[in-house]
Amino acid sequence: MREAYQVELGQLADELANMCAMAGTAMELATRALLEADLGLAEQVIGDDAKIDDARSACEEHAYALLALQAPVATDLRTVLAAIHAAESLERMGDLALHVAKAARRRHPNPVLPEQVRPYFAEMGRVAVELARSAESVILNQDVEKARSLEEADDEMDDLHRHLFSVIMEKDWPHGVAAAVDVTLLGRFYERFADHAVSVAKRVVFVVTGRMPGYADDDEL
Amino acid sequence: MREAYQVELGQLADELANMCAMAGTAMELATRALLEADLGLAEQVIGDDAKIDDARSACEEHAYALLALQAPVATDLRTVLAAIHAAESLERMGDLALHVAKAARRRHPNPVLPEQVRPYFAEMGRVAVELARSAESVILNQDVEKARSLEEADDEMDDLHRHLFSVIMEKDWPHGVAAAVDVTLLGRFYERFADHAVSVAKRVVFVVTGRMPGYADDDEL
Repeated sequence: MREAYQVELGQLADELANMCAMAGTAMELATRALLEADLGLAEQVIGDDAKIDDARSACEEHAYALLALQAPVATDLRTVLAAIHAAESLERMGDLALHVAKAARRRHPNPVLPEQVRPYFAEMGRVAVELARSAESVILNQDVEKARSLEEADDEMDDLHRHLFSVIMEKDWPHGVAAAVDVTLLGRFYERFADHAVSVAKRVVFVVTGRMPGYADDDEL
Repeated sequence: MREAYQVELGQLADELANMCAMAGTAMELATRALLEADLGLAEQVIGDDAKIDDARSACEEHAYALLALQAPVATDLRTVLAAIHAAESLERMGDLALHVAKAARRRHPNPVLPEQVRPYFAEMGRVAVELARSAESVILNQDVEKARSLEEADDEMDDLHRHLFSVIMEKDWPHGVAAAVDVTLLGRFYERFADHAVSVAKRVVFVVTGRMPGYADDDEL
């Protein structure tokens, strides 16, 4: 019974790691769709979002089955609940990539972003994908040190986001209000994606160490 | 044992209902702070946010204890897990009210909002508070019909949000880019608050009926 439990817990971790990979790929493709005004890539991300939603449902069902059949207590119980929370964050990361892809589709064939801010989004996209990949590796290896590195990447994202805002807010922003609104919302999607990735990693640290590092949601604005 | 379980489940529901009341009050005061440039109210919301965070932690701990001690299965298990999810949404609603209050504080003594869009935010604030109060009543009375009415209020919020966007995007928006950025983000905070309130109500419907009405997160943008 105990052994079966560990096997199932390992499967749950594999499912979560797979969701990280899916969310990371979604954001990678959505960012390319955004930067290159690539409708095909945008459609691909939009079409694939249901797969991340399904993966979350499957993950939650497996967690429920584990709770119902094995009635874990103490750390084992917290591990399963952490997995349920992590799956929710990962689905949300998929939604945020979906929003980016939809913005690219909405403005196609025009680019959403003025040339001036594209480098910020290229960087935010790179950091977002790095965060998703790191969260995947944290889950697969239960690597507490790696989890700390996510905080650094998240700080980098926050810096990029702040700089981006200062660019929009400059008196001589020449691209008009509509572009500023798009850039504002897109910037927020990347920043929230990063927050959720950090939250996933923190929950894994909690499972490994029994202690929650800070709180899960550092959404500061 | 079974009776003790029902008593504890009732307490958990009371805690969630109390969190709804806290989130609703936070958004009510934050909206007044925003519309009236009232620094004192903004500070109150900012200071009180920790209480919502604490309520969420307490709720989660009680849910964990219930799972560990009673090892519920089937509907009982799903009820406790729905409570854990609902507590997470409610904490997030508190965070969104906090963001509104921080915007009011950041621009004080200047108003954040141009006169032209204030009526939208007065309405969005009213609908947001109504949603939190309705979610509270859904939880306390396990009222499935009432839960449906939340969807209507959420549609109203989405309409307001769409209209607000069309106002910002009009060619003759005279208030500049910085105001447009503030209005964009604030609009999104209200819309997400509403989404989370609906998600809380849907989870209660699920607990009562055993069926999830649609999916929890209708964030469309």
